[in-house]
Amino acid sequence: MRRHNSALVLSTIADSPGISRAGVAARTGLTKATVSSLVDRAIAADLVVDGEPTRRDGPGRRGTALTLSPAGPHGLGVEIGVDYIATCLVDLTGRVGRQRIRPADNRAQPANRVLVKVGRAVRAAMAELPVRVGGVGVAVPGLVESATGFLRTAPNLGWRDVDVHAELRDRADLADIPILVGNEANFAALGELWGGGHEDLRDFVHVSGEIGIGAGIVMDRTLFEGVRGFGGEIGHLSVDAKGPQCSCGARGCLEVVAGQDTLLRQSGAPDVDTLVLRLRDNDRKAVTAVRGVARWLGTALSNVVNLLDVPTIVLGGTYAVLEPWLREVLQEELDLRVISADWSQVRILRSTLGTEAAVRGAASSAVRAIVADPDPFITASVPTT
Amino acid sequence: MRRHNSALVLSTIADSPGISRAGVAARTGLTKATVSSLVDRAIAADLVVDGEPTRRDGPGRRGTALTLSPAGPHGLGVEIGVDYIATCLVDLTGRVGRQRIRPADNRAQPANRVLVKVGRAVRAAMAELPVRVGGVGVAVPGLVESATGFLRTAPNLGWRDVDVHAELRDRADLADIPILVGNEANFAALGELWGGGHEDLRDFVHVSGEIGIGAGIVMDRTLFEGVRGFGGEIGHLSVDAKGPQCSCGARGCLEVVAGQDTLLRQSGAPDVDTLVLRLRDNDRKAVTAVRGVARWLGTALSNVVNLLDVPTIVLGGTYAVLEPWLREVLQEELDLRVISADWSQVRILRSTLGTEAAVRGAASSAVRAIVADPDPFITASVPTT
Repeated sequence: MRRHNSALVLSTIADSPGISRAGVAARTGLTKATVSSLVDRAIAADLVVDGEPTRRDGPGRRGTALTLSPAGPHGLGVEIGVDYIATCLVDLTGRVGRQRIRPADNRAQPANRVLVKVGRAVRAAMAELPVRVGGVGVAVPGLVESATGFLRTAPNLGWRDVDVHAELRDRADLADIPILVGNEANFAALGELWGGGHEDLRDFVHVSGEIGIGAGIVMDRTLFEGVRGFGGEIGHLSVDAKGPQCSCGARGCLEVVAGQDTLLRQSGAPDVDTLVLRLRDNDRKAVTAVRGVARWLGTALSNVVNLLDVPTIVLGGTYAVLEPWLREVLQEELDLRVISADWSQVRILRSTLGTEAAVRGAASSAVRAIVADPDPFITASVPTT
Repeated sequence: MRRHNSALVLSTIADSPGISRAGVAARTGLTKATVSSLVDRAIAADLVVDGEPTRRDGPGRRGTALTLSPAGPHGLGVEIGVDYIATCLVDLTGRVGRQRIRPADNRAQPANRVLVKVGRAVRAAMAELPVRVGGVGVAVPGLVESATGFLRTAPNLGWRDVDVHAELRDRADLADIPILVGNEANFAALGELWGGGHEDLRDFVHVSGEIGIGAGIVMDRTLFEGVRGFGGEIGHLSVDAKGPQCSCGARGCLEVVAGQDTLLRQSGAPDVDTLVLRLRDNDRKAVTAVRGVARWLGTALSNVVNLLDVPTIVLGGTYAVLEPWLREVLQEELDLRVISADWSQVRILRSTLGTEAAVRGAASSAVRAIVADPDPFITASVPTT
């Protein structure tokens, strides 16, 4: 019961920073005495801070403005990319702190070697911090079973059946810290939802193209993962059934006709930065390659919209960088193929976070887990006599 | 409040037929006096019947077994097919009564002419009945806005922007009866969920192939319609982006490569019955045509599973009839293309209701709407003094 009430109080303060104790009581239906006691414990645990006195709304003594504590436990996001490892800290108020990205060719090494490196990166991030880490979110480019956090397959890493949760817990000494393992595309969509700064973003598909192509589906501001957590695998939508062979074993998946490797090969550019320079110069080969990718991406996204009826697409990852050159063809395809487009055109947005979305979403998910269940932090800091 | 309690009592009886008044009180947390009063009113309104005395579980007088009344208000299902109009009655207990199907080439006529005929069919069904109709569910082969019941487009009928709800209310004198308008594929999935007799059917896609191809997506026993109600448009998934022209304006939609018209043309059979006879005779042209359709259907369904992560496909409509000849190729495609298939093969079931699923689901939806809000029926039958 107290566990539930602590969560209620914390999420009320999270939703209305600056609210008074009396405001929390009115909003939650708890008594003022209960709220005061819980708030005091949350302050002692560094979860909440007492700020300026609030304006007087009625009789009685003035309250003080409560906010979540920027010095309290932080969420640490970790992303295991195909060719990098990224970390990022987010505090309870949602402010993004230290971010770090280390290039690493994770494709070339077995899972346990990569996880040793990740464990080291996590320990380093935690050791150099003046703050406490209260939860870790780990983004992986593969299919994660939501009930267990078990990574079933990550085709672009060549990983199969890896218990990322257990490996990291042991290698990074995280025994006492909650660890959330999830698909990077799903975390990226959440990162965009919570920190992308778009107004009016409620139902959308966030599609991120890097070496793999992933999607995160958000409906009613909630991540849609499918029954077991394997939903949103847009990279393996078949767009050209008799097309080239994909790493998954099938033919003509979106990833193999519109992924970064194919795009670079077709454009003749050695990397995305060079590709962008050539696009700015109107290089014909580069422009043609990007328009070809946009055509296939538009076909796949039309399928997504026809099935899920989401009104908005957010272009993330490399697609965010390429958005100015993708948009026209993409909108054309969506207008042509989405059956509801005649009376309701699909809206295309560009991710503001780009390739940082996943690690940010992972860190923010860890923060939200603290707010949703603060009691272990309160219990740990207040001696119960 | 009473409205809410009536619904609670009725749905408890619906979930546990034979339950006693004391059982309802225990299950709902309402007092025995409240339950007794609500049950008496529901009996007077013909919604509930008192049956045999229940076994004595403890002290006190024995209760009687309550069930929903088979003589109470019925749900009427109406399906406006591309080439038929079907009606069906379902009572409060879920038992299916009179069903009727009238061939009608609804493609050849404007919407208002068809709706005159539908209104006549509804009035006829209601006039000849010994029972009262308490709600009407109308299945249409097109996109229905869930908030308004407005039919936006039905490409195979050639209809656009038709207020089916208002038209039927006026033409069939349904002013006092709730009318639910919905997509036929969605109603078919619900029909299969509630009345298909499959055990363990919780998360699935029901795909029905007739002249159009539609899908109903059910997750956690709940229909998934998408944000505005336009989800599940599997017929317009692009499987062959440069393929033949579809009625929707795009190219290579599933419907144009795997719909009934194409299948019949490729097999050389004049109708589905003849096609089945030829398949039984192992006619090579017929077998090849069905295997070709299975290939495309498997591609589209793989896309659905990769996006939504549903473990089960139910083949409905014409596909239920053709299931023995579709299954092998379909399973092959799903095994190849679904990225989670390696550790969790997609299960293929055959609809037991076939082409009746949609009209049954429409009628049952109307019944469930009565159980979910019985108060208007109670109020209408009991004088409030």
